[in-house]
Amino acid sequence: MTPDWIAVDWGTSALRAFAMRGTAQIAEAASAEGMASLAPDGFEPALLRLVGPWLGPGTTPVIACGMVGARQGWAEAPYRPVPCPPVAAGETLRLRARDPRLAVEIVPGLCQHTPADVMRGEETQIAGFLAEEPGFAGTLILPGTHSKHVRVAGGLVTGFTTWMTGELFALLATQSVLRLTLAPAGTDPAAFRHGVRQGLDGGGLAGLFALRAEALLAGLDPVAARARLSGLLIGAELAAQPPAQDCVVIGAEALARAYLDALAQAGIAARAIGAGALVCRGLALARNGGMT
Amino acid sequence: MTPDWIAVDWGTSALRAFAMRGTAQIAEAASAEGMASLAPDGFEPALLRLVGPWLGPGTTPVIACGMVGARQGWAEAPYRPVPCPPVAAGETLRLRARDPRLAVEIVPGLCQHTPADVMRGEETQIAGFLAEEPGFAGTLILPGTHSKHVRVAGGLVTGFTTWMTGELFALLATQSVLRLTLAPAGTDPAAFRHGVRQGLDGGGLAGLFALRAEALLAGLDPVAARARLSGLLIGAELAAQPPAQDCVVIGAEALARAYLDALAQAGIAARAIGAGALVCRGLALARNGGMT
Repeated sequence: MTPDWIAVDWGTSALRAFAMRGTAQIAEAASAEGMASLAPDGFEPALLRLVGPWLGPGTTPVIACGMVGARQGWAEAPYRPVPCPPVAAGETLRLRARDPRLAVEIVPGLCQHTPADVMRGEETQIAGFLAEEPGFAGTLILPGTHSKHVRVAGGLVTGFTTWMTGELFALLATQSVLRLTLAPAGTDPAAFRHGVRQGLDGGGLAGLFALRAEALLAGLDPVAARARLSGLLIGAELAAQPPAQDCVVIGAEALARAYLDALAQAGIAARAIGAGALVCRGLALARNGGMT
Repeated sequence: MTPDWIAVDWGTSALRAFAMRGTAQIAEAASAEGMASLAPDGFEPALLRLVGPWLGPGTTPVIACGMVGARQGWAEAPYRPVPCPPVAAGETLRLRARDPRLAVEIVPGLCQHTPADVMRGEETQIAGFLAEEPGFAGTLILPGTHSKHVRVAGGLVTGFTTWMTGELFALLATQSVLRLTLAPAGTDPAAFRHGVRQGLDGGGLAGLFALRAEALLAGLDPVAARARLSGLLIGAELAAQPPAQDCVVIGAEALARAYLDALAQAGIAARAIGAGALVCRGLALARNGGMT
């Protein structure tokens, strides 16, 4: 059974593809051939390696979002400025592929001029979310390497802020002096909450070196140190710009749970939604102009 | 002319030695054989490579401060807890060197239990400063990889806080997504002040990714981006725990000037003092119990 179309989520470090019949996923595949590992002429071969088995003799539409549309991607899809709907009919970038079986479109990211900010990929998840809840007004949080806080009202993205929380965590945990103090994995909910409280109270940056000092002076447990670092950074993120009371976290389970926990400490009763299905839903909307 | 004694400032990444006659420096030498590059039995040979030419036939006292006294150093000199004088008579760790021409003493660092914090090396600079200004009461800021804010009163260090400002700057500038946006060197005073203002106003963390976005959207100059990142981090440091109105910056010239500039924006009229001579002055005090 060949798909009607193929949905592609193509980020910095990963490529995920979904064989679609209407809005139903009939197969999925993934590789590590993200944008960062590819030159512009490497995108089409990487895509064919992954989705080749799904292609029939005719032309299959491929709708892709994410860093594939960045300046260093397959082709640059210029940002759409907010306020605007997260995706819009007829605004994808159409590419001429060498293989005639492919008709590729790239969903553009969003930009905000003041303060300057950009996103690529999250807009598609947001579109998928708004398809389910078109009347939502509040803050969507999409945690990750670069955590996004996105303000939404009346079907529009009205503004957003990017936090380097995930990237800071990885750098501090593996490259800084704190690497001597942190376990390579593991969680500790009480230590996480301790860190969140400190971050919410403005002590996030001062709390960093204290992890090293407490390890030296008082044998701080390495797993607790890791969990507290995560809490410090997430707490600092939430303290600097508190989300609206109507707040939804869109993301993978463990990380979404951590944000819900931190939001509860900040007095915000948020809920979480998995990101997976939202991407395909949003890509379907981008393809069909909201008419699926 | 052989020295009376040798002053040694032995940090994580550098070793500096001064041939001393009383409190006068008669020669100096430096190498990159810092603590991080040496196993415990490598310290004595590294020291001899640097100061061997200064040694006479008798025994020369060597007084060292810094990471040389850490757990991973030549020998661990246990921390002294604050509140306490920055250095104290008879509290150095005496080492048995293999070479009979060396009589080595290591100045212990300071610790604070709540919140946990540690220093090694800065206490000696602080002792040198207090030798000049014994009545000082206020905050000493010692910027660097790990910036220290040290509260001093009545000849005692009463408390301190370490900020990972310098290490964060280096990681963000060279390892994070911001590396694509930052010049490898250069300064821009207006951009620095812009960052400081944002950091003082609580926008330090939100300002990080904005550098990348502004480069993509508005061609932010790479030197300006570098200067603004420095300002964001220093501003955030000063915002989280404002120093006392009587504030002195102890450090190398360019960095001390940047802190003075940021402090002025925070409404604090601080002054700066070079760190170089303070170390030898402090080491002389540690050796002689304050009687030089």
